[in-house]
Amino acid sequence: MTKDTYDLLEKYMLSCMGDSAHDKEHVYRVLYNALEIAGSEKNVDLDILICACLLHDIGRKEQFENPKLCHAQVGGDKAYAFLTAHGFSEEFSDRVRDCIKTHRFRREAPPQSTEAKILFDADKIDVAGAIGIARTLVYRGTVGEPLYSLNPDGTVSDGENDSQPSFFREYKYKLEKIYSGFMTERGREIAEKRRQNAVNFYSSLLDEVKSSYENGIENLRSCIESS
Amino acid sequence: MTKDTYDLLEKYMLSCMGDSAHDKEHVYRVLYNALEIAGSEKNVDLDILICACLLHDIGRKEQFENPKLCHAQVGGDKAYAFLTAHGFSEEFSDRVRDCIKTHRFRREAPPQSTEAKILFDADKIDVAGAIGIARTLVYRGTVGEPLYSLNPDGTVSDGENDSQPSFFREYKYKLEKIYSGFMTERGREIAEKRRQNAVNFYSSLLDEVKSSYENGIENLRSCIESS
Repeated sequence: MTKDTYDLLEKYMLSCMGDSAHDKEHVYRVLYNALEIAGSEKNVDLDILICACLLHDIGRKEQFENPKLCHAQVGGDKAYAFLTAHGFSEEFSDRVRDCIKTHRFRREAPPQSTEAKILFDADKIDVAGAIGIARTLVYRGTVGEPLYSLNPDGTVSDGENDSQPSFFREYKYKLEKIYSGFMTERGREIAEKRRQNAVNFYSSLLDEVKSSYENGIENLRSCIESS
Repeated sequence: MTKDTYDLLEKYMLSCMGDSAHDKEHVYRVLYNALEIAGSEKNVDLDILICACLLHDIGRKEQFENPKLCHAQVGGDKAYAFLTAHGFSEEFSDRVRDCIKTHRFRREAPPQSTEAKILFDADKIDVAGAIGIARTLVYRGTVGEPLYSLNPDGTVSDGENDSQPSFFREYKYKLEKIYSGFMTERGREIAEKRRQNAVNFYSSLLDEVKSSYENGIENLRSCIESS
């Protein structure tokens, strides 16, 4: 890919991201993860891959404004329109669109091409380990969700079987489960190497919070009842 | 303290918090931490302490709306006004106000009473360990700040000497340094026990991000230049 082409794609990506620093950082990490994975795969079209990585989340804003929309579908179509309008061939634009449309897991539309599988894994790696934890916590801040919920007896729930959204629930429902389902060996390997970082943080946070509440509820009860 | 008094104070605290789930969670943890510390201190007035803990952050909204205001000053005055208006003695209300006004470290106004020192430490514990990390990341989300900054050569900065706000900068400037300056032995002990959790997370996150960028920048350069 020429420098001019890369700059054109990057500029379009940045224009779609608005002010979201996190989304930008994520895009570069996905691109870098993908190139790392590509080194272990055969017959990768790096131009398709770089283009698909840079543009994979350009439909985020639309999904944020209307949660019924899927950012992968919107993003794929936006990418196709942008690319064909800027002189890329229909075949190239179509292959990029396919990668973007299948980067978010849907049973009825799994990634097919090598480039689509690499993008899928590169994106998934960013949900693993300490980065996955950090991104999930930052997201809780943007939507105003709590770190944890309390059980009916006032103790802290570990997130399992929670009905209300929280960081612990997201960890149990999503972060803990992402290590299966990778489509490339190198992708699986990178995520696996980071797995313990996420486990450690969740356990530490749960321990700290539980220890505050467990002694605290008892101590408070004795202060209130004794008066 | 009677159940009715506790309920009155809790209700007022909640009314000042608005929708912020994080602020509420924080208040209960500070209360529980404080009661834990109180168990190792002599002559603690638990009514003063419970009241000061519950109300210590009621000036947050005012500071958020006008960053020139200090939530400790505003909160202390709001607490005093609320308490005297609800039949608490002037002496009681005054002692609670002092605790709240000095809970945020200012060299010219350090916490004086045992209860003020306990509140100060209980609040500081919530900046330590995994909880401190989680709260800091959630806050980055609410204000839209990035996880890290890049050095001029495109590599990831560890936060040291950064001029732009980011999670890594906040870790280096604040989180890493909070383990000194506790005013009670038990407070220092609890924070110290959690210290390694924060260190581990920061190191893991930095490692993961750095490894993405270091290989990635090189890989990308070879793709762009070779075309």
